[in-house]
Formats: sequence, C-alpha cells, structure tokens
Amino acid sequence: MYALYIANKNYSSWSLRPWVLLKTLGIEFDERFVPFLQGSSYEEFRKFSPTGLVPCLVDGDLTVWDSLAITEYVAEDHSSVWPADRAARAWARSATAEMHSGFSALRNICGMNVGVRVRMHEISAALQANLDRLDELWGEGLSRFGGPFLAGETFTAVDAFFCPVAFRIQTYGLELGEKSMAYSQRLLTVPAMKEWYQAGLAETIRDEPHDAEIALAGTLMEDLRAV
Amino acid sequence: MYALYIANKNYSSWSLRPWVLLKTLGIEFDERFVPFLQGSSYEEFRKFSPTGLVPCLVDGDLTVWDSLAITEYVAEDHSSVWPADRAARAWARSATAEMHSGFSALRNICGMNVGVRVRMHEISAALQANLDRLDELWGEGLSRFGGPFLAGETFTAVDAFFCPVAFRIQTYGLELGEKSMAYSQRLLTVPAMKEWYQAGLAETIRDEPHDAEIALAGTLMEDLRAV
Ligand SMILES: N[C@@H](CCC(=O)N[C@@H](CS)C(=O)NCC(=O)O)C(=O)O
Ligand SMILES: N[C@@H](CCC(=O)N[C@@H](CS)C(=O)NCC(=O)O)C(=O)O
Repeated sequence: MYALYIANKNYSSWSLRPWVLLKTLGIEFDERFVPFLQGSSYEEFRKFSPTGLVPCLVDGDLTVWDSLAITEYVAEDHSSVWPADRAARAWARSATAEMHSGFSALRNICGMNVGVRVRMHEISAALQANLDRLDELWGEGLSRFGGPFLAGETFTAVDAFFCPVAFRIQTYGLELGEKSMAYSQRLLTVPAMKEWYQAGLAETIRDEPHDAEIALAGTLMEDLRAV
Repeated sequence: MYALYIANKNYSSWSLRPWVLLKTLGIEFDERFVPFLQGSSYEEFRKFSPTGLVPCLVDGDLTVWDSLAITEYVAEDHSSVWPADRAARAWARSATAEMHSGFSALRNICGMNVGVRVRMHEISAALQANLDRLDELWGEGLSRFGGPFLAGETFTAVDAFFCPVAFRIQTYGLELGEKSMAYSQRLLTVPAMKEWYQAGLAETIRDEPHDAEIALAGTLMEDLRAV
C-alpha cells in the first residue's frame, strides 16, 4: 500500500492535492501526518523527503516526491487519475502543470488556511490577473468538456490541483464569475474535501509562520478552528 | 506533425526543454520561433498560448501548454520520453517535477543566457543551497541508475529538464562536484544541445530585459554572440 506523507490540513495546500485525489478515486493509502515545525521543517521532513517538502509518497522501496510526480506515478496504475478522453487529458495536464508552476500571486498572498475567514486589504494587480486567468481557465474546461468537473463528468487530477483554490476562495472571500464560483462550491462538497476541512477545523496545532501570513493579506474576521 | 512554439535560443530556458527532448529522441516537429518583445510578450504570445508563455505545442486541434504537460503528452505516443525501468521512471518524474517548481534562486539569479560568460558577484546562501541540492540529486541519479544520463543509459525527459542548468553552469562558471561537472559537460555535447547553442550564438536579436539581468548577477567577461 502507498504511504503518503502530508502536513497540517489547515495549511498544507500541496499535501491536499494527492490526498484528495487518492481519497476521491478510492485508492487506498496509509496517511503519515507530519506537522510543520515552528521555523523550518526542513531537517525533519528530510528524514523521508529528498526535498524536505511534503507531499511525499512511499511505495515499497520507491520514494516519489512532489505532488505532480506522485500524480503521474499513481496514474500508471490507475487510469481514473486523468480523463479518459485524449483531448480532455491533454487539456487537464496543461492546466495542472500551469497550477504547479504558476498562480504565484494567489499562492503567495492567499496562503491556504482552511479554518479562518479573512477580509482582504486589497486585491493587487498581480492577484487580479491570477483570478482572471483562473476564471478563464475554469470556464474553458467546464464549457468544453461539459462539466460538472473541469475536464468532464468525473473528478480527476486537474480538479485535485485546484482544490486548494476552493479553500482560498472561501477563506479570503475571493470573487470569480458565476460559473467558477459554482464550480468552487462544488469542490467544497466533494466528500474528501469535506473530510479534509473537518479534520482541519479539528486540528489544535498552530503554525505561527502560516498564521502570521493572515495579517499581511487582510483582517481576520473569524477563526473556526478548535481550541 | 507537432508544431512547437519557442522563443529566443539565447534566453528561453523553458523552450529548450521540449525542443532538446524531441530533437534528441528523433521526434519530428515544426519549429515556430517567436522572439521575446522588449517589454511584455504577453499579448503576442497569447495569440497561440493560453498562458502567454512559451513553450506551447500544437498538435492538430489540440494545444498543449507548459513544458511538463508537453512532455507527458508526447510520452503517451513515444515511450522513449521516460526511462523504461519503473523505478528509474518514478525517480525521473520526481526530479523533473522538482525542477519544474523549484530551484528558484538558480533560475532567478542565473537567467539562461547561452552566449555570454559572466563572473558572479557572489553566491548567495539560497543559490548555494540550490547548487548543493543539484549536486546531491544528480549524484543520486547517476550512481543509482549507472549513467551516463541521469536515469540510466539513454537521454530522457529528466535530462532535458536539466539542460538549461548545463548552460547556466557554463555561463556563470558555477561549481559543482566532479561527477556533476562531468554530467553537465556531457549535456553540452549532446548533438541537439550543440545545435541549440550554435543557433543561440548566431542570433542577432537581443532582449534588453534578459540582458539587463547579467549585471545583477555578476560582471560580463565575454560576449560570444554574433553582431
Ligand atoms: N512542488 C512541490 C511543492 C511542495 C511544497 O512546497 N510543500 C510545502 C507544504 S504545502 C512544504 O513542505 N513546506 C515545507 C516548510 O514549510 O517547511 C509539490 O508540488 O509537491
Ligand atoms: N511553467 C512554464 C514556464 C514557461 C515560461 O515561463 N516561459 C517564459 C520563457 S522561458 C516566457 O514565455 N516568458 C514570457 C515573457 O518573458 O514575456 C513551462 O514549464 O512551460
């Protein structure tokens, strides 16, 4: 069985991607939770991950690091990871790779923090450009492949890669067009997303560096996390 | 036949990756050269690429953007893209994804500029950490899979993703361990790399923003480009 190393469900957006994918596709794995350490987690995470980052998948004597490599590794044995249709698959891989290396303003300014609600100070031009591109990209996928998921009828890896965005939209009250907002809501109701969210709310461990990012982005309005 | 959109051979590190991969594997494509515009190329590149970035592959009515998505798309029809061995393939995919989303100090400080030679002002701690990780990663691949390429006997996508690093090492006089330096030299002698390099030297178009980065990194010692 796969072992998947992940960090705090409140904060770890990269961990969420393969986790929600495997859960939603019904692929079993052993969850290995390793909380962020205050300061640097590098030395601790290096014990299992060559980059000192999570997620990291271990399968027997193979270690696969990085969310996208994990996705392609699992896809070799599970055809449901990517859409069955060739054109949808090419599109899904492109959109996934774009998220993997792009949307940096959104990722940096609006760090994933599932259990809080924040009113943004401002939407910078760079952030707005990311939101506009997101709206365009999601709109294209949903209309071209017919929905309800980005590349067609079923939840695939490209949806998993945008799951952290759904949490960010909720946390920071970000606004996209109607179709995109509906899609974002849809992601939040996927059973594995609900499970992750509830587990995030139940977490009592806090990571100061992650929580400190809130004040840079905006004003904390609500903290729904267990104490 | 595939059409591959790429920018200037002197500067475009992301274009180089799929270009050198397809060339080296003998996969035919129609090269579409689109030079960077002084200032922003976004509007111009948006005419063919959804992100406004290169590389972008067009195959009939399918558009595949992003170097890594292109790699996986081509791999569906060409098994030589990734190593044949399962463990080597998992490792290669991880290392490729790590390059796709990481090594940011190296990528930002030492922008690819194949036709010049620069003496670095200093090696910052972040850059040194990237170089150390590179040395470790390359060393692991070369010893675990037996070389001469990163994941074994043949040149595969993971080598293609590190080809821009070989040019950076040459341009900025970066230093790694002996085995890594030998591997970097080996990449420079791959026929497609020589072809790219010569074409870069022959380019007379300059891009001011890219050339301006040189002075931030160090002192220009030599400019080998045609005038
Ligand atoms: N490109 C990597 C990114 C992984 C990453 O940045 N993970 C973060 C957590 S979401 C991490 O491990 N950070 C270590 C730390 O904060 O010390 C992937 O796709 O897996
Ligand atoms: N993640 C993308 C990155 C592509 C990218 O950043 N391309 C650069 C050129 S190397 C670009 O098109 N820049 C546009 C510009 O400088 O205006 C990929 O892997 O293809």
